[in-house]
Amino acid sequence: MTTPLISIVGKSNSGKTTLVEKLIPELIKRGYRVATIKHNKHGFDIDHEGKDSWRHKKAGACTTVIACPTRVALIEDIDRDYSLAEIRDKYIKDADVILAEGYKGNPFPKIEVYRAELKRELLCGKEDNLLALASDTKLDVSVPCFDINDITSIADLIENKFLQ
Amino acid sequence: MTTPLISIVGKSNSGKTTLVEKLIPELIKRGYRVATIKHNKHGFDIDHEGKDSWRHKKAGACTTVIACPTRVALIEDIDRDYSLAEIRDKYIKDADVILAEGYKGNPFPKIEVYRAELKRELLCGKEDNLLALASDTKLDVSVPCFDINDITSIADLIENKFLQ
Repeated sequence: MTTPLISIVGKSNSGKTTLVEKLIPELIKRGYRVATIKHNKHGFDIDHEGKDSWRHKKAGACTTVIACPTRVALIEDIDRDYSLAEIRDKYIKDADVILAEGYKGNPFPKIEVYRAELKRELLCGKEDNLLALASDTKLDVSVPCFDINDITSIADLIENKFLQ
Repeated sequence: MTTPLISIVGKSNSGKTTLVEKLIPELIKRGYRVATIKHNKHGFDIDHEGKDSWRHKKAGACTTVIACPTRVALIEDIDRDYSLAEIRDKYIKDADVILAEGYKGNPFPKIEVYRAELKRELLCGKEDNLLALASDTKLDVSVPCFDINDITSIADLIENKFLQ
């Protein structure tokens, strides 16, 4: 059985990372192992300049692995943008649930984070596999609209729908 | 066929990373894809405080993947120290050769980096699967002793022994 994946979407600065950050410990408390995916189409910066692993990668290694007894990190060149499903299948093992942040165009069930002060339209409709909103204002939409801080109810939704 | 793995060993500050850093472009120039492994028994620091991926991992994600169209990074919790062979098998795909730095007790062929000014004994003998020395002084040993800066000859050794 493939690991359920929920995509947390929303405009810039809507609070996607904060929601993910709060959902993780709530789901862990309920006994689940949580993995996350962050996609950034403009590239990302990782590792620290001057570290041995940084020097390896900078010198041209296609893959650099850094390991210690409790953690492994891998930095790998790829030749095309992977889909969320590919990332899940290639890199994630042993998780019960995956929260993905930053992908808008994907087929997975979505929770959209909305903040009124940004004065923007919703990003998703039901046709985008929108499951629920996490919002700082009550919106009249065809999916459940949770308070952005009501982590219990949002975790309940994830648990009831995907983890039982 | 498993990817050949050469372990670069040596005392602290002997110049292991510098040797790896010079061998990578030399091997790439010869047409090989090079992966590296850095092992640090005392843990490692990666990612930048405050970044979304850093916040995911800090919130308790067992695995965090960061992806962009050209690179993927993975940070994963593990429950025990993996051997070099396990790291190779679990994390490295599509490389022609792997250079590992920092593991002393492993069964793989080794190149020991030696610098006279450190005034220390050699770390390995032939029983440790020592293949060659990369040294700043000529040592009378039972394996080839290359000048630490003679990257061509060291790459020749790797190529002739493992890549043809």
